[in-house]
Amino acid sequence: MPAARAVDAADPALSYVDAHEVRFRERLLELIRQPSVSPTGEGVRDCAVRLARMFDMIGCETTEIVETKGNPVVYGEIPGAGTKTLLVYLMYDTQPYDDIALWHYSPLAGTIDELDLPAGRVKALFGRGAMNSKGPLVIFLNALESLLETRGQLPLSVKLVAEGEEELGSKHLPDFVKGNRDRLLGADGSLFPYLIQNASGKAQMWLGCKGIVYVELEVSGKRWGRGPTEFDIHGSYKSIVDSPAWRLVDALSTMTRTNGNEILIPDLVRKVAPPNQEDEDLLAKLATTFDPNEAKQMWKLTAYNLPDGDVLSLLRKYMFTSSLNIDGMWSGYVGEGSKTVLPHKATAKVDVRLVPNQDPRDVIPILRKHLDAHGFPDISITPLMDGYYPSKTSLREPVNQALLGTYREVGREPEILPLIAGSAPFYWFTEFLKAPVAAGGMGHGGRMHAPDEYIVYEGNPRLAGMGDATKFFIRFLKRFGGG
Amino acid sequence: MPAARAVDAADPALSYVDAHEVRFRERLLELIRQPSVSPTGEGVRDCAVRLARMFDMIGCETTEIVETKGNPVVYGEIPGAGTKTLLVYLMYDTQPYDDIALWHYSPLAGTIDELDLPAGRVKALFGRGAMNSKGPLVIFLNALESLLETRGQLPLSVKLVAEGEEELGSKHLPDFVKGNRDRLLGADGSLFPYLIQNASGKAQMWLGCKGIVYVELEVSGKRWGRGPTEFDIHGSYKSIVDSPAWRLVDALSTMTRTNGNEILIPDLVRKVAPPNQEDEDLLAKLATTFDPNEAKQMWKLTAYNLPDGDVLSLLRKYMFTSSLNIDGMWSGYVGEGSKTVLPHKATAKVDVRLVPNQDPRDVIPILRKHLDAHGFPDISITPLMDGYYPSKTSLREPVNQALLGTYREVGREPEILPLIAGSAPFYWFTEFLKAPVAAGGMGHGGRMHAPDEYIVYEGNPRLAGMGDATKFFIRFLKRFGGG
Repeated sequence: MPAARAVDAADPALSYVDAHEVRFRERLLELIRQPSVSPTGEGVRDCAVRLARMFDMIGCETTEIVETKGNPVVYGEIPGAGTKTLLVYLMYDTQPYDDIALWHYSPLAGTIDELDLPAGRVKALFGRGAMNSKGPLVIFLNALESLLETRGQLPLSVKLVAEGEEELGSKHLPDFVKGNRDRLLGADGSLFPYLIQNASGKAQMWLGCKGIVYVELEVSGKRWGRGPTEFDIHGSYKSIVDSPAWRLVDALSTMTRTNGNEILIPDLVRKVAPPNQEDEDLLAKLATTFDPNEAKQMWKLTAYNLPDGDVLSLLRKYMFTSSLNIDGMWSGYVGEGSKTVLPHKATAKVDVRLVPNQDPRDVIPILRKHLDAHGFPDISITPLMDGYYPSKTSLREPVNQALLGTYREVGREPEILPLIAGSAPFYWFTEFLKAPVAAGGMGHGGRMHAPDEYIVYEGNPRLAGMGDATKFFIRFLKRFGGG
Repeated sequence: MPAARAVDAADPALSYVDAHEVRFRERLLELIRQPSVSPTGEGVRDCAVRLARMFDMIGCETTEIVETKGNPVVYGEIPGAGTKTLLVYLMYDTQPYDDIALWHYSPLAGTIDELDLPAGRVKALFGRGAMNSKGPLVIFLNALESLLETRGQLPLSVKLVAEGEEELGSKHLPDFVKGNRDRLLGADGSLFPYLIQNASGKAQMWLGCKGIVYVELEVSGKRWGRGPTEFDIHGSYKSIVDSPAWRLVDALSTMTRTNGNEILIPDLVRKVAPPNQEDEDLLAKLATTFDPNEAKQMWKLTAYNLPDGDVLSLLRKYMFTSSLNIDGMWSGYVGEGSKTVLPHKATAKVDVRLVPNQDPRDVIPILRKHLDAHGFPDISITPLMDGYYPSKTSLREPVNQALLGTYREVGREPEILPLIAGSAPFYWFTEFLKAPVAAGGMGHGGRMHAPDEYIVYEGNPRLAGMGDATKFFIRFLKRFGGG
């Protein structure tokens, strides 16, 4: 028997994990096979009901499906033995799988198959939401069940907040947090349970995240009062009729240059705060271990947008610069062949990522002012999600120290990222509820928002599978709870 | 009995039209209900077979489905009494109806319903291809049948060339014309039978058409060697990863400004020939009768791209300037809501309209050179149709004189357009076969390439219905044939 397994056996909660592999796997498959695509609405409410039943099954004393003006929050409480309270931020919604032609595994199947990663061969579980974030959610629930079933009680009180609108920018989470402020306040910290080993097996902790504003810009001939107004007309009219499609190109081209790498709207980035001393120290340390090729490999990139070699600059740019991204755009005829039309509309989906000190409430007014000043007052700006604030904690926070301690307990020295470029509503926990968010966990997944999203199901010595990921959270809960 | 009907009765061919309204209508409905969407391929070959059967039914001595490397040409010959020969250019393919949600009438039904036009209320027949160009095709066949059934013989020999790739830029028509040069050469003129009354009832003749080149420009991260290469990745990477979508915007923005109205590629328009003296004379005359509001009304435009009032400038610009149009573009996520991705590809469909002296063979090399010179050597240029040459005849040509005479015979003084902005393969008749194309006919249709395409089925005193449109071609055939 390998040493690690011997240690596990000494803790009934840990051996409970090994004994319930099938039960735990089926719990994840149930959630993956129940779509919950918040951008389209598919299956979201059914998924909330399933999740509430899971909260009951693992032993929540209180489970509530809390209605919001959008998708409900599934809320659960488990009073614990100690004096500490942990808030847990979870999400049960996913991105769409409209790019289904590019998937090799059905996005709703949860197929388990071999996958070769830089850390070696593993068995991965493929499906929409596997990593973002049904896998981590279920793994954390499994950890709670393991403790409850083997000890009767948790070492600390836990309050679970699972929202169904993360992929919409957590539109109504602020309402929920404000409306339930009294029962959420006073926690000692928050956890975003996630599987943060990269494809090589390196573990990470994240101390914060970027904010985001996501809007749709639309040129409409009708609103503009020029060009075709009601439908796409015969293309031969271009010589004497204005073009909404070209107008969108004109407008976008005033906003950035060099394929979006330089933002030409100074107000948009005026408030950007540089990294503070802790950030700089963490970045400098991170640069000694961070391997830029790992993300390249995962995302099949051939290059970053700055020269290879200077890892510190890459990290600083990734984490501490604001970006203006085209997520999608369309106009006119997008089918096969050669339909000759002059389109009456043109649309772009655009997101702005925000770093510390930028305020999401500023973004749309700044875009409006920019478009107006450049002669595009008719171009509409429609927010597609509520803005996320950026959020950042310190490594000195007890909850982060407990997470770091847990990593060390399992023999890992994690890379510590002062910030990730992704966005999450951590602000409402860290800043509003004063319960700083720690983000971490063993295990690995990839291709979030992309085809063949996966998590590692059965790992190898370098990469934790679902079982070891579950055990990590058991250890964390005991450590932060003080027993 | 009204006077016109009394005159018709004196010519058996004309009264045959009135007596066979149902038969003639059903012939058109049969063709509209048989899709023939060349850009997607839907139904094209079945339509060719139906059309060949119609050629047989009306009395063609020879009917052949002539294979090409693409869709077949349906060819028919009817030897006539006189010495003259007329080539007739027809097309049996249509644009797609992918914008089906915007149609009020099924594109494949051929619904007849009331329609209010500036010329007054009419009954229109709605369907894909009703005007472009199954309606005119069937009306011309009906005219031939009327003459053959009532006189036993046509007053001139007719050779029908119906292609199935007009909406693909007549990709293989040049091969057909070259391969059948011997039997096509020596004709006295060509006719493009079309219904050229505008919505107010004004009749027109067209002496030529623009050429066109239609291409797809694609930025691919894979070919570029930058940005996402295989699939759309998480949008948060924009700060350190290049963007094909922004790159497409960058590239397009070097090609035009002011929403496409100014072309920034001097070579593209360097060869543009100004109108000649006949053109200028025709333009000056046309400017006295042409009402710019009619096209505005039909296409629901609120404005042209030059100031109101100067009709001569509008006409000159419409007919004698080259345009660079975005027919469609797309990248990334184009569904509902807010999927945050950094797309790996971005594509635009672009057409260039060519006026006299421009050569379609020049266009792609010029675009290539432009993109290369501006740092976009990786952007691919894929032709979606073979180029059309521009083509122009003179009003002095006998076939145009016969057409003008026919208009006058039915009491109309047509507007004469030296050129239309649309594109057709007239070059292969006018220039290659030396059989100048006359384009005209009574009747009206609209919304070509757009939802609810229609032709007038039952007209009013200002606007010819199908019956009068048929009679017009009977008169033209007698006049050009000399009896």
